[in-house]
This record gives sequence, C-alpha cells and structure tokens, in this order.
Amino acid sequence: MAAKKTIITLTTDFGQKDHFVGVMKGVILNINPDVEIVDISHEIFPHDVLQAAFTLRQAYSYFPANTIHVVVVDPGVGTNRKPLAASSEKGFFLAPDNGVLSYLFAENVINEVREITADHYWLKPRSGTFDGRDIFAPVAAWMSKGVSLTSLGEIISDYTAIDIPCPALVQPGIWKCKILAVDRFGNLISNLTREQFLSLLESAEQKRFAFRVGEQTVSKISQAYAEGQPNEVLAVFGSAGVVEFCVNQGNAAAVTSLQAGKDILLKVI
Amino acid sequence: MAAKKTIITLTTDFGQKDHFVGVMKGVILNINPDVEIVDISHEIFPHDVLQAAFTLRQAYSYFPANTIHVVVVDPGVGTNRKPLAASSEKGFFLAPDNGVLSYLFAENVINEVREITADHYWLKPRSGTFDGRDIFAPVAAWMSKGVSLTSLGEIISDYTAIDIPCPALVQPGIWKCKILAVDRFGNLISNLTREQFLSLLESAEQKRFAFRVGEQTVSKISQAYAEGQPNEVLAVFGSAGVVEFCVNQGNAAAVTSLQAGKDILLKVI
Amino acid sequence: MAAKKTIITLTTDFGQKDHFVGVMKGVILNINPDVEIVDISHEIFPHDVLQAAFTLRQAYSYFPANTIHVVVVDPGVGTNRKPLAASSEKGFFLAPDNGVLSYLFAENVINEVREITADHYWLKPRSGTFDGRDIFAPVAAWMSKGVSLTSLGEIISDYTAIDIPCPALVQPGIWKCKILAVDRFGNLISNLTREQFLSLLESAEQKRFAFRVGEQTVSKISQAYAEGQPNEVLAVFGSAGVVEFCVNQGNAAAVTSLQAGKDILLKVI
Repeated sequence: MAAKKTIITLTTDFGQKDHFVGVMKGVILNINPDVEIVDISHEIFPHDVLQAAFTLRQAYSYFPANTIHVVVVDPGVGTNRKPLAASSEKGFFLAPDNGVLSYLFAENVINEVREITADHYWLKPRSGTFDGRDIFAPVAAWMSKGVSLTSLGEIISDYTAIDIPCPALVQPGIWKCKILAVDRFGNLISNLTREQFLSLLESAEQKRFAFRVGEQTVSKISQAYAEGQPNEVLAVFGSAGVVEFCVNQGNAAAVTSLQAGKDILLKVI
Repeated sequence: MAAKKTIITLTTDFGQKDHFVGVMKGVILNINPDVEIVDISHEIFPHDVLQAAFTLRQAYSYFPANTIHVVVVDPGVGTNRKPLAASSEKGFFLAPDNGVLSYLFAENVINEVREITADHYWLKPRSGTFDGRDIFAPVAAWMSKGVSLTSLGEIISDYTAIDIPCPALVQPGIWKCKILAVDRFGNLISNLTREQFLSLLESAEQKRFAFRVGEQTVSKISQAYAEGQPNEVLAVFGSAGVVEFCVNQGNAAAVTSLQAGKDILLKVI
Repeated sequence: MAAKKTIITLTTDFGQKDHFVGVMKGVILNINPDVEIVDISHEIFPHDVLQAAFTLRQAYSYFPANTIHVVVVDPGVGTNRKPLAASSEKGFFLAPDNGVLSYLFAENVINEVREITADHYWLKPRSGTFDGRDIFAPVAAWMSKGVSLTSLGEIISDYTAIDIPCPALVQPGIWKCKILAVDRFGNLISNLTREQFLSLLESAEQKRFAFRVGEQTVSKISQAYAEGQPNEVLAVFGSAGVVEFCVNQGNAAAVTSLQAGKDILLKVI
C-alpha cells in the first residue's frame, strides 16, 4: 500500500474570485503531486488576522498530526515581517508573523517557532505582494516531501502574539464576554468556554445566570437550535466548545444587531 | 493498479467562510486518507431543505455508483430527528431525516433507508450543533473503508418525505408550473419536465402553447440562450431535463422579478 | 512509484451555489478516477470572457506542463460556436471559441488549436445549455487518460481572438493604461507590465513619472502595500508582473471609484 499522502490545508483572505488560491495549489502540486490539499476558508475578511486565527483554531485539531496548515492573511506582505514555520504535536503551521497563530500560542499548542529564511525553497523571483505563492506554498510543498523544520531557519522567540480576549469580571457577579465571530448562520460565537461557564455557575450561590444579548435576556442553556421560538435568542454549547447565541432557523446577528467584537454580559448569582 | 478511491460528495448550507466544511474534510481524511472528496455546493440557502434536495437530485447521477453523497442541511440538528443512510443503484446517501432525499424517494431511486444508530462510528463527544462533523462525516469515511449499511442501523420506513411540487391542471388547458430554483445566471428552473411538456403538446389539438412568465409570454422553445433579444425571456430545455426560462446574457429572475417558489402558467391549445 | 496524476483545472462563471461544478467533477472522475482536479475560479462574472481570459493567464504557468486547463465561460453555448482544444509547451486548454484564450494567443503560448469534433468523447445526450458537463469535462477526462489532441478534431486557424488592450500613447509623454481587473482586495490591476514601465522610464529625459489614478497622483513605485497612509493610493509591481494600484489595508477601487475597464493615465518626462 502506498504511504498516506500528507495533507496541506489553506486558510486565506484571498477569496475565490481571483486566481490566487488556484495558483498556490499549482505551485504546491508542481513540487509535490502526491499531496492532498484541503481548503479551510478563503473568505476570511481581508486583513482580519484575528478571524483567521480563530478559524484555524477551530479546524486544525481535526486533521492528522502531520498535516501542514498554511495561513495567509498577510497585510504586511512585502515588508520585513517574518515568515514563520511552527511545529506542534497536532500539526505544522506556516504563516506570516502577525499574530495569526495566537490561539495556538495561548493554548500552548506550539512547540517551536522558526523564521523561514532558507530562500532556496522559495519561488523566484519573489514578487513582494504574494508570499502565499512565493514562500508559503512552496515551503509547504517541500515540507510535505520531507524537508525538516530545522532546515527552514532558526528558532525565534520574539514572534508576534495578539492578546486573545477572555471573559473579564467587571463587577461582582458580572462577566463581560466578547463575540469572537459570527458564523454563516448568524450565530454569535462567544469567548466563554463551556468549562468556564460551568465553573462560574458551580461556584455561584443560587446557580442562576442570565446573559444579556442585545435587548434579550437568556437564562437557560438549550440543547438544540430548534428549541427556540421565532426571533428568540437561545444559548447553546456550540461545536467549538464555547457558548453560542442563536435563533431557531433565524439569524441571531440580525435579530440582536450584534457583530464580532461586541460584548455580551453574563450575570451569575 | 491501485483500487479506485471511493468518492464522498458534500452538499451543505455551511457556506465557505467558516471552518465547517474544512473540519468535515479533516474528520473524513483522518479516518480514510484514501478517499476523494468532492464539493457539490455549500451555498445552499441556510435551512433550505428543498433547495438542497433539488441540488442533490441534479448532481448525484453523474458520479460513480459507489459514491457516498453526504447532505447536511439540518435545521433540526440536536433534536431527535434521525440521521439516515440510504442506498440505491446510483449511490449511497447520508442525510438528516428532514425530507432532503425527497426527490430520490419520489423518483424511486432509493432501495432502503436505515436510521444511523451505531454511534461507535460517530465522533465523540457529539456536540449537538454540528452533526456534519460528529455523525455524517465520520460515518461516510467508515463506509468508504467498507463498513456496510447494515451495520449502521435498522431499516426504517417512516422517514420524512416532502411533497415535490408537480405541474397542476388548474383549468382546461391551463397548467400551473412552479419555479424550483433560480441558478447563478438568473435562469428560472421550472418543475415541468421536457417529457411532460412534449406529451401535453402532443395531446393538444392545435399543438400550440404559451408560457406566462411574469409580464412576458413565451410561445416557442429555443435551442440556445444566445437566440434571445436583450431582456427577452426564452424557454429552453435545460440541462436538468426541465423547461428553463432565461435571458440571453442577462438575468431572467431580474427581468421578470420572479423567484423560486413562484408560479408560471402554461396554456396549451 | 505510481505515475503522477494529471491535473485538470477548472475556470468557469458557474458560481458555487448550484450543482454545475460538482457535476463537471463527477463526469471527470467517472471517466478517470486518477486525476487531480483543481479549481482556479468559478466566480468569473457571468459571461465575462475577458475576465476569464485574464484569470487563466495569471494561473496556468504555475501548473505542470501536462496540465489540462478547462475554461467554461460560454455565453454562446448551444449555438454553432466551436469547442476548442489547444496545446502549448505549458499545458493544454479546452474552451469555447469565444476569445477566452486570447492572452495565450497574444503571448504566443499556443502551438496549435483544434476544433473538438470527435463527439464519441462527449456525454450524450448533449443538452445544449451545459457543454461544461457534456463536452469539456468528458474530453478533459479522456485527455487525462491519454487521448491525444489529434484524435479530437482538425487543426483550425480561424479561431476567435479578442484584442488585448495595451497601453497607448495618446500625447507625447502621456500613456493611457487600462484597469484589466479589480481583485478581491480592491487592488487595480493595470495592463502596464513592469518591463514596459521600466523601459518607458529608461528612455525618458528626467526619469520622472506620475500616474493619474482617479483623483490621486502617484509618482513613485512602492515595495509593499504596508507603505501607504490611510486612503493613499500606491503603485506596486504586483505578482502578475504588471503595475497595480492599492491602498494599505484598504480598497483602492472604493477609494478611487474606479473599476475594470477604466483608464489610468501615465505621464513620463
């Protein structure tokens, strides 16, 4: 039996209208035709490093541990920001040094981070505006053929990490949570993990709580989207392991007029 | 020569912005790296079971007969609606029990339907909001590795089927047809098959007909989109085997202000 | 080691909402399961032959030389416009005869052009509205299995070529350039190549220049998008080898109110 193909995943803000993603795949397959390329998303909002970081964090752990995850949301392309290669027990990561790996840093997933300096693995001439094509795609392809991380460049420790917003205690019993993302269905994905929520509730006196989500108050956790009345905001433990707010067959973002970056208050008594 | 890879197709309302589709692919490839995954559509309108049913019906027959078609448009996720596995001479189908297989039922494509209860093939813990990841993707991957339908669960007969709208005789010589879908180009895809149309015409006295499409009357079948004048609505026998209404290099939905679900009257004399 | 899989790329205006692209892949894989299918773009604006031509031109050269590039932007489907198969040192091209290969003709990439007449390679019955499914997909699949170009049909020389707009000298020292495309980020991709620009500058007396881009004047070439002030239009040598106009973390098309087809004036003194 043939050896398993290595998987390379792509997460970018390139959209799907232009040739960008196809070209990255051409570059990869030209170097290693025996690789499996999987798109995570190319619809990251242009230059939105935090959204890309969150998307990657939701996805990477479902792939085999030798998968190479390429993330190109790169407003600093062409400047001297470094291209990075990072390793973990759960996969490899290639990305510009702009904080797009911050969730992995914060959750101690990453073992080591290297600056990619071995430019003989790059496409020449490097254009200065498309490192996805000129650096990240070919380096991923060479890695999938067995090129080791150590040969890509030196370990660095001064890489960029963005503060990941955590729920904050703003008054006794009042926690300020943040909406990290709004998904395709308009569900509001908060930064409050199921474990954090259960632990807060556990230590509360009356074991009661209320979320303030726009104009609505939500004081129970539902098991399914379908439990809600029209336009009623529900809280569920979503598939990302965090509390989500949703509307049954509706759009919670539209119903609440909330969006990514906005606050949701949680009162626990 | 290596054995042919099994194909798994995906049809969802997950969009391509979020991590959902990428995660399903990661789950599949983690179980069976030797599978070919093909996207049919991820742009089904959220929760639109009928659109998904129609899209699947347009696509499945072009794939090899051992293909596994996964359809996840699933407003009832997290409730006790059943996950289904169905077999046919033309492929296998995994989907929630909400009518998304109705075209296949109506056209007698399906041999047997089973409720997927063998939860040792599921991803654990099951989140309750993402059965595409937790049930349908892993079950498809295990099937592609040879797990048989019989080992997934028992045969059921009380599955959900949605009424597929058929052209209806509303007055002598007047048929009410429905727009099933509006495609990317704005073409109006009706529910009147080529065979139905030809048979109606055959049995008519004068062999004459007229479609009333919004404000326009169409009384011939054209061979190509290009035959039309600007903003003129044409009728053609489309690639789906039904009568379509279109505008040469234009958008029939915009020209007629019609949309999916609306009626088109056909008079035959 | 197994032989390398042939790559088939797809460039269409089919969008990703409908079943069209999935069906083309089903047809291909049904004929040749050992092929690698790569999407270049399915978001070409409906019927926009020139955008498709430019997208293909940006992408093809990054793929292996035996790649089969299928382009289906085909407003004339169902008429007697010819289906073409073309060969080059850099790949094969299947497309309708409507000018979508014009960049390749203009840049002398193409060796020979044949009309595809060998209809035993087509899907039957041919619908008249979906040659992507009925002609181009199956012919690509058969080619990937070794069917030669010569067996597809006769060489023709009266194929359609669209004039590719070139920078034009409109007054002494004043060149009128055109915006060929606006990419996902709003960058304005001009038709002035890096080489043309440098050569014009070289032969100018004072080696000075100014682009008039909407209301802004740009008189230097920047190295990176990130060099710009908010809403400042920059000129860079983009990844396509032409001069691009962009705004740092912004959208040059929005800032300048320009779009594809509009002019940009270059003064060289």
